[in-house]
Amino acid sequence: MNSEIIGLVAGAFSCTTFLPQVIKTWKSKSTKDVSLTMFLIATLGTTLWLIYGIMINSISIIGTNIVVLFFSLTMLYLIFRNREKKEHI
Amino acid sequence: MNSEIIGLVAGAFSCTTFLPQVIKTWKSKSTKDVSLTMFLIATLGTTLWLIYGIMINSISIIGTNIVVLFFSLTMLYLIFRNREKKEHI
Repeated sequence: MNSEIIGLVAGAFSCTTFLPQVIKTWKSKSTKDVSLTMFLIATLGTTLWLIYGIMINSISIIGTNIVVLFFSLTMLYLIFRNREKKEHI
Repeated sequence: MNSEIIGLVAGAFSCTTFLPQVIKTWKSKSTKDVSLTMFLIATLGTTLWLIYGIMINSISIIGTNIVVLFFSLTMLYLIFRNREKKEHI
């Protein structure tokens, strides 16, 4: 079996990992229980995986990490927006 | 520059991505704002990456995903334990 097929399916799962959290946080506007550090590490890690993917020419790794990076940055935005709002109450 | 060095650093970041969330949830015992679906998808995705890593012989991918899988399962345990407790109150 072609390893790139497994890689693409794995990538499809990884792509959507943070999506349910983004939707939940977007709706609830509550980030009390969510770890900011988790998404800071995710952003840094994803950027490095992207570089690794480019270096080893893995379409699965490149594609996945572009999407995950987008959701990580969205979560960082939501967490900081939420903190800012709280400070203004 | 050796791509496996970038892969290992990326792996080190990914390994610890969920750790701050595990620590936060372990201490607070509150999972109200945390998405269960996120950790279900993470568990499935990580398992597939592990298979992909084995198929393409990438130590970075294999090592990372063993650790991430462990933390994903820990988060699932914490979320379900928390739900069970709430039902008994």
